[in-house]
Amino acid sequence: MTPKFGGITAPKGFRASGVSAGIRKKPGRRDCALIVSDTPATVAGMFTTNLMKSPPVYWNIKVCSGGKARAVFINSGNANAATGMRGHEDVATTVEALHKAASIPQDEICICSTGVIGVNLPMDRILAGVKQCAESLSKEGSPDAAEAIMTTDTVRKEFAAELNLSGGAIRFGAIAKGSGMVSPNMATMIAVITTDASIDHPTLKAALRVAVDQSFHRICIDNDLSTSDTVLVFANGESGVKIPGDSKDFAVFQDSLTAFCQEIAKALVKDGEGATKFVEISVRGTVNDIDAKTIARAIAQSQLCKTAFFGQDANWGRFACAAGYAGVQFKPEDLCIWVDGVQLMDSGGACAYEEADASAVMKQPSFTIRLQVGNGPGAAVFWTSDLSHDYVSINADYRT
Amino acid sequence: MTPKFGGITAPKGFRASGVSAGIRKKPGRRDCALIVSDTPATVAGMFTTNLMKSPPVYWNIKVCSGGKARAVFINSGNANAATGMRGHEDVATTVEALHKAASIPQDEICICSTGVIGVNLPMDRILAGVKQCAESLSKEGSPDAAEAIMTTDTVRKEFAAELNLSGGAIRFGAIAKGSGMVSPNMATMIAVITTDASIDHPTLKAALRVAVDQSFHRICIDNDLSTSDTVLVFANGESGVKIPGDSKDFAVFQDSLTAFCQEIAKALVKDGEGATKFVEISVRGTVNDIDAKTIARAIAQSQLCKTAFFGQDANWGRFACAAGYAGVQFKPEDLCIWVDGVQLMDSGGACAYEEADASAVMKQPSFTIRLQVGNGPGAAVFWTSDLSHDYVSINADYRT
Repeated sequence: MTPKFGGITAPKGFRASGVSAGIRKKPGRRDCALIVSDTPATVAGMFTTNLMKSPPVYWNIKVCSGGKARAVFINSGNANAATGMRGHEDVATTVEALHKAASIPQDEICICSTGVIGVNLPMDRILAGVKQCAESLSKEGSPDAAEAIMTTDTVRKEFAAELNLSGGAIRFGAIAKGSGMVSPNMATMIAVITTDASIDHPTLKAALRVAVDQSFHRICIDNDLSTSDTVLVFANGESGVKIPGDSKDFAVFQDSLTAFCQEIAKALVKDGEGATKFVEISVRGTVNDIDAKTIARAIAQSQLCKTAFFGQDANWGRFACAAGYAGVQFKPEDLCIWVDGVQLMDSGGACAYEEADASAVMKQPSFTIRLQVGNGPGAAVFWTSDLSHDYVSINADYRT
Repeated sequence: MTPKFGGITAPKGFRASGVSAGIRKKPGRRDCALIVSDTPATVAGMFTTNLMKSPPVYWNIKVCSGGKARAVFINSGNANAATGMRGHEDVATTVEALHKAASIPQDEICICSTGVIGVNLPMDRILAGVKQCAESLSKEGSPDAAEAIMTTDTVRKEFAAELNLSGGAIRFGAIAKGSGMVSPNMATMIAVITTDASIDHPTLKAALRVAVDQSFHRICIDNDLSTSDTVLVFANGESGVKIPGDSKDFAVFQDSLTAFCQEIAKALVKDGEGATKFVEISVRGTVNDIDAKTIARAIAQSQLCKTAFFGQDANWGRFACAAGYAGVQFKPEDLCIWVDGVQLMDSGGACAYEEADASAVMKQPSFTIRLQVGNGPGAAVFWTSDLSHDYVSINADYRT
């Protein structure tokens, strides 16, 4: 897989747009985005497991179960979550408007909303946004679309890559917004991925599940599972390259989709709210990979570990403590911990190291905390940010 | 039960002391405490479930299984956790020294250590502390002992109460340090409770379990389960009042011990690291109490809810969101939310309220978030603090 310049429209046959419809407080700020495949496309999606799923999430689950979709309309500034029946009606009205404006069947239109929870959508503005978006679709629309879906994100997130398969080249494109699977402001993680590969629905669905498990399910900013988290992938087959589920090409496609999703996931963590550090937690030696992931996640989610990252303090006792309460059985006397190449803990106790060496690692913008918890074959990585003053400021002041 | 002036030595037959042995960085800061019952006492304890339990916790579990103990020695400034075999040896050495200094059988001595993880105890200072503590035991020693166990606590925590039973009056006493069951700096929550009631070991153990479930298991500051959390209760029978497990008096004793533990637990939350708010989360209408507790805990632990408390923002979408990912089944369309008397959410959606009214509630130092999630008989409360800039500062700078 080769990284490519471009974004959501990098694959053949996709167009995008992003406009300002006055939903965000800041005048002129883009807040509506539309991505359309010119031809029918296979779709697969994964969504938040929160019981308080937003109406758009319910709608998308229905669309994705059909396996076919050509468009996704996204607004920022309002999550249309905890909005009761009115929220579901607003989704239906938006879908109907887009159907009329872009001549796309209603059951092939996905809808995402991201922003504050519990406020009804300003439908006049949404409908104006739908119209403007449909009129301004273009091959060059990816940056505008990427900008329109940002909430507290500080950078626009576009991704593109090309992959050579036995039948020829296919492309991936994506836009995303953060700042976590576990979203910092209920504003939702959203990632929309496009590809011009030709792939059937069950195969695409299976591939997305594997890719998400290795990417978006391995990041955290805070520990709040949003009402609206959504990952969508559209495959329109415009490359003419077929990927049967049992082919060698599929294995390559799967690995590439996973790597592509990891790139997006890491970008979300790096732009996490208030984040000053990007930290990889790598755990080895457990009985299986799931145990390793569980330990890595406990450290990644720990407020004390995250404040230590912010403080640039190699406070390995906190890392050991989080491993200890993760719920995985291991022998404490086996535990070893490193930050990058500097070993801090050996066989369950302190080992001789220079605090200056550990401190030098922690002062970098990005580093790895490595744990060996035994001799088992299990291993996993997890990516996280730090917990900073800015995180508190951003979230204490979010609505006001 | 009547609150009383005093602390850990309020019940008959207990003495305490607190001295400075040079373990803390700050010169002259008290850092060793000793509490002794003049006569044999029944003991019960509850401890952290962290896999990386500290050596003192392992020791106390053994002592408590015997059901008899007369003393507890506590040092602050060092948790003696993740210290391997050396940590266990240091506990044994401390116990032996205390046995010699105070003529107490070794298997009737509990040991607690609180502070930074992963550093060996400075044994020369610990042993000096043991000696000084043993020499300075007195009926007036409670304030010194309470001060000696503080780490990032900002106020000394002493508690006392008196209870009239059919056989006469008994007393409770306690000292504690925070700042949470889920401790903010690995420095551990420790509570030592004394009573002059006469009660056998199985009954005391059962009573403590119920009391802790309704108190220390209902608070959180952050979500990091310490390596050393410890609650100990000593009952020396010096009041002459017997409390059989099947008596009416036991029911009164149980309720009073629970209320006493709740008072201690709430005091820990109020003095939580960086805390500016004390928030009660009250959930009703679930199928059972456990489900209510699970939802209440999800809100109490949520970084987004806690930053909203700090920001004095009645961002009820975050409370609903946390309820939604708690893992408990309920109908989102039934959910209603109040802050004190102001209703914010009705039947799954926003309801008409004045933001100024909600804001006035959130500006108080203490308020209640109330959720009704259905018509079931389940109910629970949970107590939490906010997540402030000071929390980040305290924990980013803890070791350095």
